[in-house]
Amino acid sequence: MSSAFGNCIKISIFGQSHSEAIGVVIDGLEAGFKLNTDEINSFMKRRAPGQNAVSTPRAEADEFHIISGVVDNITCGAPLCAIINNTNTRSKDYSKLKEVPRPAHSDFPAFVKHSGFNDIRGGGHFSARLTAPLCFAGAVCMQLLEKENIFIGAHISSIKDVHDSDFDMVSVSKKEIEALKKSEKPLLNQKIWPLMEETILNAKSQGDSVGGIIECACVGLKPGIGEPMFDGIENRISQAIFAVPAVKGIEFGRGFESAQLFGSENNDAFYFDGEQVKTKTNNHGGILGGLSSGMPIVFKAAFKPTPSIAKEQDSVNLTAGKNEKLNIEGRHDPCVVLRAVPCVEAATAIAVYDLLLENSR
Amino acid sequence: MSSAFGNCIKISIFGQSHSEAIGVVIDGLEAGFKLNTDEINSFMKRRAPGQNAVSTPRAEADEFHIISGVVDNITCGAPLCAIINNTNTRSKDYSKLKEVPRPAHSDFPAFVKHSGFNDIRGGGHFSARLTAPLCFAGAVCMQLLEKENIFIGAHISSIKDVHDSDFDMVSVSKKEIEALKKSEKPLLNQKIWPLMEETILNAKSQGDSVGGIIECACVGLKPGIGEPMFDGIENRISQAIFAVPAVKGIEFGRGFESAQLFGSENNDAFYFDGEQVKTKTNNHGGILGGLSSGMPIVFKAAFKPTPSIAKEQDSVNLTAGKNEKLNIEGRHDPCVVLRAVPCVEAATAIAVYDLLLENSR
Amino acid sequence: MSSAFGNCIKISIFGQSHSEAIGVVIDGLEAGFKLNTDEINSFMKRRAPGQNAVSTPRAEADEFHIISGVVDNITCGAPLCAIINNTNTRSKDYSKLKEVPRPAHSDFPAFVKHSGFNDIRGGGHFSARLTAPLCFAGAVCMQLLEKENIFIGAHISSIKDVHDSDFDMVSVSKKEIEALKKSEKPLLNQKIWPLMEETILNAKSQGDSVGGIIECACVGLKPGIGEPMFDGIENRISQAIFAVPAVKGIEFGRGFESAQLFGSENNDAFYFDGEQVKTKTNNHGGILGGLSSGMPIVFKAAFKPTPSIAKEQDSVNLTAGKNEKLNIEGRHDPCVVLRAVPCVEAATAIAVYDLLLENSR
Amino acid sequence: MSSAFGNCIKISIFGQSHSEAIGVVIDGLEAGFKLNTDEINSFMKRRAPGQNAVSTPRAEADEFHIISGVVDNITCGAPLCAIINNTNTRSKDYSKLKEVPRPAHSDFPAFVKHSGFNDIRGGGHFSARLTAPLCFAGAVCMQLLEKENIFIGAHISSIKDVHDSDFDMVSVSKKEIEALKKSEKPLLNQKIWPLMEETILNAKSQGDSVGGIIECACVGLKPGIGEPMFDGIENRISQAIFAVPAVKGIEFGRGFESAQLFGSENNDAFYFDGEQVKTKTNNHGGILGGLSSGMPIVFKAAFKPTPSIAKEQDSVNLTAGKNEKLNIEGRHDPCVVLRAVPCVEAATAIAVYDLLLENSR
Repeated sequence: MSSAFGNCIKISIFGQSHSEAIGVVIDGLEAGFKLNTDEINSFMKRRAPGQNAVSTPRAEADEFHIISGVVDNITCGAPLCAIINNTNTRSKDYSKLKEVPRPAHSDFPAFVKHSGFNDIRGGGHFSARLTAPLCFAGAVCMQLLEKENIFIGAHISSIKDVHDSDFDMVSVSKKEIEALKKSEKPLLNQKIWPLMEETILNAKSQGDSVGGIIECACVGLKPGIGEPMFDGIENRISQAIFAVPAVKGIEFGRGFESAQLFGSENNDAFYFDGEQVKTKTNNHGGILGGLSSGMPIVFKAAFKPTPSIAKEQDSVNLTAGKNEKLNIEGRHDPCVVLRAVPCVEAATAIAVYDLLLENSR
Repeated sequence: MSSAFGNCIKISIFGQSHSEAIGVVIDGLEAGFKLNTDEINSFMKRRAPGQNAVSTPRAEADEFHIISGVVDNITCGAPLCAIINNTNTRSKDYSKLKEVPRPAHSDFPAFVKHSGFNDIRGGGHFSARLTAPLCFAGAVCMQLLEKENIFIGAHISSIKDVHDSDFDMVSVSKKEIEALKKSEKPLLNQKIWPLMEETILNAKSQGDSVGGIIECACVGLKPGIGEPMFDGIENRISQAIFAVPAVKGIEFGRGFESAQLFGSENNDAFYFDGEQVKTKTNNHGGILGGLSSGMPIVFKAAFKPTPSIAKEQDSVNLTAGKNEKLNIEGRHDPCVVLRAVPCVEAATAIAVYDLLLENSR
Repeated sequence: MSSAFGNCIKISIFGQSHSEAIGVVIDGLEAGFKLNTDEINSFMKRRAPGQNAVSTPRAEADEFHIISGVVDNITCGAPLCAIINNTNTRSKDYSKLKEVPRPAHSDFPAFVKHSGFNDIRGGGHFSARLTAPLCFAGAVCMQLLEKENIFIGAHISSIKDVHDSDFDMVSVSKKEIEALKKSEKPLLNQKIWPLMEETILNAKSQGDSVGGIIECACVGLKPGIGEPMFDGIENRISQAIFAVPAVKGIEFGRGFESAQLFGSENNDAFYFDGEQVKTKTNNHGGILGGLSSGMPIVFKAAFKPTPSIAKEQDSVNLTAGKNEKLNIEGRHDPCVVLRAVPCVEAATAIAVYDLLLENSR
Repeated sequence: MSSAFGNCIKISIFGQSHSEAIGVVIDGLEAGFKLNTDEINSFMKRRAPGQNAVSTPRAEADEFHIISGVVDNITCGAPLCAIINNTNTRSKDYSKLKEVPRPAHSDFPAFVKHSGFNDIRGGGHFSARLTAPLCFAGAVCMQLLEKENIFIGAHISSIKDVHDSDFDMVSVSKKEIEALKKSEKPLLNQKIWPLMEETILNAKSQGDSVGGIIECACVGLKPGIGEPMFDGIENRISQAIFAVPAVKGIEFGRGFESAQLFGSENNDAFYFDGEQVKTKTNNHGGILGGLSSGMPIVFKAAFKPTPSIAKEQDSVNLTAGKNEKLNIEGRHDPCVVLRAVPCVEAATAIAVYDLLLENSR
């Protein structure tokens, strides 16, 4: 049990890749908030498949359908449930997959965990498709955060060895985040996209895949938000971000790099900017002792390359009890990073909004 | 609120650096388990201060005192509470610290969060001293895990730019982990210690501090443990590890490096080793889809340099509303990494044991 | 936030009386369990409206639709979501109700709580209609309990001043419970129904309503299930039962009567029945110190009369800020007790199954 | 696991009757609140044993000791831990009790639950002594509630068949509650005490015990507090109240009596009292749909007679596997009701304060 998150709002995600539908229940939303459904749609479209050459051709509209919790799209205080139908599922035979688990996928441990009763079709509940309801919930939280002047935006920091610029952790702003969302690709330096695309398509043409890194910023959070020890901002964002499939690492501020610095280099000096306390540098990524410092929250998440590749791989046949070669068919993203950008934003929005509520009592 | 962790066991940590005592309540322990208090003592001694040249001279025995939950050191099913007295607190004046927050510490956001009522003495509830009860709880969980043949051990992967060897993620074993715990320093390559020590003492002599990286392994966990989405092993270990002060990043398996690999390089091929399914490589760090694969779980955590340094720093005076220079007095570790090794093991033990229980129904 | 229940399974209920649909997410179900959907249907039919003269004429099939969590009706370990469409909603104007709250309903406090944004149509999320997903979840838990030889059944103990016999708390058995479910009405003494019906119809004919008491038994629970203090069986069943609208009291075993007894009368003597420890009487209702004793669990829940009555009532106009007479139109049960019997069983099944799982680690 | 309560504050109670100490951790308290420790002491003295002829002669001061969470008795935002030492424990041999469980006590199911490892001394964690930390936590919450003009008070409604007057559920006020706390015994009609005392002492003289009923009121709660379904005020108060040993029933407002009324009798008509919406009667006990209506919250809890009696009783020898007579020695209350009054108030304060916080976001 675990497809739920949050202390003050409860996000409960359900569904499998090929079940009739997937969806989410959001409990704890304040009443009287008018949802901007157009914005939610735009947000979810950034995640939706089938939109360009570097994405899976499985084309689904990912249209959500709110079945409770609102009256005329205004929250009424009751749990909000949104459903996304699974329309474009291929009725091919998945029994083979249950026998021969795909490397780097959840197939094998899910088979063991659920004694062979796991829904293997498209990865079942472990499918990246479950990020669609995550994005829905994140889009709702993001609208509630924006009402409080808190803005979240992410960009592709790298695809394999092709790098975008990094956020300036001190100065990243609402304006920059909004510009990012309007730009064609989520990049600080748009000119890098052709190189990234080339990297992805090269991998694809060889039946291979690539990974990458996403950098995310959250601006506008006042100081003192977060909880000590296990519910600090780092703890809660991490817990949420690792729900996005393929994430294998996360670092805040200077992160792993800070392990190589002297204290005198890494410490961020305080100063007064008018009446506001700020730091001259932001190596701490906006988080001190688990609490927001008032500086932008900045972190990076590492994505492994898509596990599903066209190349033949070594696997095992669990029924036959012997090694077996595996050739994966079907439609797959040669790189998930582009579509993962809104997922990272959504997971962050949920974690931050929940902590904000916890600190608003 | 947040100093609690766990779904099946509940670890609730309390206390401030200079309160009368600190401690922990562990609820949900099975009855009939004989605690090995000597082993708990040894474990906690690894964290205790004042033991060598690279540690703070604040010498406290960190003696725990179990006040409930056991009869003759055998758990009785009631919540276990252990107390550690704060004996060696200096009664100096801390009021200055409240006014002038230490860079890279929780002082400033804690002041804002608690409207100035936070206990500033020694960092209060945000102090690294709170890892003592964390280690107590971790030591208890570790004993329960060892009963199930699950072993957890960590070593210093690096201090600043001095690196130990890495675990062989495929072959790291109980034997290796136990050897590590018996060795003088938690290092795979003992010969590297003098260089690490020199790095630390050099920084210290300049009134500075250094950070580093800890690598941790957990072996013996059968496949299928963990929960989808928000309660996968990565999610839960991350949530626990970021409770250790100074952690700024975490990565599982190849982590950030995997973002630079092709899928065909990163995917770990399955094969049968007798009747057991294994992978030839372990880039996934023992976790697929949030679930254990049966391979060793391996991760790295990055620690920033100790924020408390002797060098003068720029800060602000919150009362006076103006910038002010800060000179930190008191006793501090020039590098927390050595003492953080058991903390990382403890946090991991708590997270893994909780998930194990959740999967034992 | 609160429409969720359970530590080991999570029941999350959503929907409003007149939203597009209502439903429930059940997280934490073991994989590999074949749902008997016919039995779930039969169970839910006992709650469904429009089936006889003493029930509301709002006729809805209450057909559930499982949209996730199963493959061929076998649980797959993913959260199970079931939807029940709201088909027979009348599109009349509810705006008046928001202004003039119905006495003994949630209308007024819900209006205040949600700043007037609550969904007033049919009582919104506070409607008794939400017991349909509760019954679905209860029916699923009941099937899982029956696999463990644990059986739950309830009967109408009284309608106003017409009383059925009581369970023999010592001897009530699976056989008796099953007979009860097959009988036309949930009564130990079928002959009492005409009197009960007459009482209800008399009230109805006068535009009035009546309440009653339901007695529920759970047999087959082995001793030692439950948790100390806040999560004892009484605590958890109470928390679940008060989720059924109109419940105003609950008592276990001899309940309020035991307050009038001597200890020597109320204490239940232990004896060996073969190898099994039993008690000669069962004044404790199967629960000692919050834990199951192995004797049948027996409790009673008191239901107030249906708040919606045809008689004119005194109320207030919240907009106009003055007193106003209220005449409630619409379709209402003159007595909810009959339809509440499966709701009580369902709430009990959820509470007991959750505690059983918690004790199965 | 279960000795914890609360969503917004977390009360975690630990200890056994004869462990070194008992205590409580309260997480989630706002910083900057000055505790009135004298008042807490007075409150706890009402529960403490050995104070009069109708109480157990086990005399313990029940002195609490706050070891964390405050600076100069002002909350600092860190979890507050308070300890109460167990000083007057008799070191007699309890091994017999483990073999021969006391009727109506938790001994037998606790033995089964914890495989014989339960702490049997004085009832262990199931002892009524654990209400001391409950009262401490309740006293803290009560002070926080009083700051919001919310007041909680209870009185003995009956001892066996001797009855006090009942609260006027419409008019019960802060003034009445405060008068009650200052009166010698918690009774609306002080003159009834001699009869109650006589009833208790008569039972005691015969080696027997008696039970009774406590009525509790909470005034000052504004409308709209509470959560739908499982976290309504009735649900949460019930969950908390059943943590007090010996409670076997609870009813809100007219409770079981309302099951015998017509809707037209039971419904409470709304009217405007100035600008405030009130009800003319308060059969609903201040709770509609789980939410506060603004009227006083009133409920009754039934206590069974003290299980420990001097009379010889029938029991079993679990080791020998045969029936055995039991004569209980030791010091016991012939009636727990008097000392349970502050416990009921404390449990109510915790439940109400937690819901208040949940509604304050």
